[in-house]
Amino acid sequence: MKRAELVDLIRERKSFLCVGLDTDLDKIPQHLQGQPDAAFLFNKAIIDATIDYCVAYKPNLAFYEAMGVEGLRQLKLTTDYLHRLGKKAFLIADAKRGDIGNTSRQYARAFLAPESDFNFDALTIAPYMGEDSVTPFLVYPDKWVVLLALTSNKGAFDFQLTEDKATGRRLFENVLERSRQWGTTENMMYVVGATKAEMLADVRRIVPDSFLLVPGVGAQGGSLEEVCRHGLNKDCGLLVNSSRGIIYASNGTDFADRAAEEARKLQQQMAQWL
Amino acid sequence: MKRAELVDLIRERKSFLCVGLDTDLDKIPQHLQGQPDAAFLFNKAIIDATIDYCVAYKPNLAFYEAMGVEGLRQLKLTTDYLHRLGKKAFLIADAKRGDIGNTSRQYARAFLAPESDFNFDALTIAPYMGEDSVTPFLVYPDKWVVLLALTSNKGAFDFQLTEDKATGRRLFENVLERSRQWGTTENMMYVVGATKAEMLADVRRIVPDSFLLVPGVGAQGGSLEEVCRHGLNKDCGLLVNSSRGIIYASNGTDFADRAAEEARKLQQQMAQWL
Repeated sequence: MKRAELVDLIRERKSFLCVGLDTDLDKIPQHLQGQPDAAFLFNKAIIDATIDYCVAYKPNLAFYEAMGVEGLRQLKLTTDYLHRLGKKAFLIADAKRGDIGNTSRQYARAFLAPESDFNFDALTIAPYMGEDSVTPFLVYPDKWVVLLALTSNKGAFDFQLTEDKATGRRLFENVLERSRQWGTTENMMYVVGATKAEMLADVRRIVPDSFLLVPGVGAQGGSLEEVCRHGLNKDCGLLVNSSRGIIYASNGTDFADRAAEEARKLQQQMAQWL
Repeated sequence: MKRAELVDLIRERKSFLCVGLDTDLDKIPQHLQGQPDAAFLFNKAIIDATIDYCVAYKPNLAFYEAMGVEGLRQLKLTTDYLHRLGKKAFLIADAKRGDIGNTSRQYARAFLAPESDFNFDALTIAPYMGEDSVTPFLVYPDKWVVLLALTSNKGAFDFQLTEDKATGRRLFENVLERSRQWGTTENMMYVVGATKAEMLADVRRIVPDSFLLVPGVGAQGGSLEEVCRHGLNKDCGLLVNSSRGIIYASNGTDFADRAAEEARKLQQQMAQWL
């Protein structure tokens, strides 16, 4: 999806919500557990219930890989369904990949290639291995890298905030500064955790025009208001993710209705900021 | 596999070679291409040809994911074969994963859990997200984290060598220093690229007793001699990986024999260092 299409979609749905499809067979409603294709059936119901209130879906690969080969098949059923659906959505594989160039090219093939099993719009990438681990993901037109900058977890403090002696910048700022030269605002976004919203201003100083994918609202404790105050730009420039707060709003037979309700609540708050 | 068993295996086979199963359907011999289970057939032939000369196998997940859901099935056929085989080998999933704690637990289930589809001994992890992204992988007895410290690619220079103002340590040294407190020498190894062999002495100052997984010998240009000179410790402490140099030594019908030959050459050099 091109940036202009994503911005149009945000304006049309008055939402910059991303729904995290972190589907865990131990947490889905009991009446679905044990059914064939249970993960897909759960995802399909969540998608049908939430697509009018969000612009993006983000399955985290870990949850599918935890189900083994079968889990990947369920993920493919899910992305196939999303591609067939009449309504558009931006599809992010939250995979946090990254390897030497030769290998990153294979990951790009796996997730972003139009002929791949999944054909995602975007893939999250860890920056530790530097430029040649990231640029192989930028070869497919209208596909995106979502590079980790400042993550939402406690461990973010271990390395991401260390200050580089040579440049005076913290590691996450170095990542932003260096990677701006690898891609453009049309093919590269950044992960910035909502739990570190006070640093969004620092992020925006370096990448004022880039889209940011913001996890950590909801279960992880981040505030939507803080994120909007510091993160919005003229094209919106935000995709705010909620996973558990939406998809596990109920574990009864009303799970899809409750997910719709939670997604709609967030959408209505977002509409006021747009 | 326990550390003591790995050390015994190294002594028994007089080898610390790890064979990288980076199986690419475009590069395997023509007579296998198009056959059902071609990737597995290729891997099986390589394993049968090399197992007397190596102690470990390291499939890189990217190559299997690039084949889609089917690729993961081929990987499972491969690990199933290795588990069935009478001869022992240490099995490393080169996946470079790492995510928030809740999610890392799922990746651990996917690759390390004894009941998982793959049941690997070890998994490579990227350290960018810090402690709580790494420790969830340390819960399975006799299973290992292989943490990226100093990688073999050019991009390693982008961030891994930046010097932290507070500690005066380079990032990879900070990763080594901090992570020593997360695991032990019995459940944590480090990736240190052979192309940076001159820094192995710096690595050894911080983690003298840890095992190191060393990629980059062969196709990437690293020297086995340099690696041994700076990297060996009293328990050997090294697993040196070669992928393309062994598995693609020939792309004719003699590929397995030529792979055996290349593995044996490395094993013989290694035997002299042990």
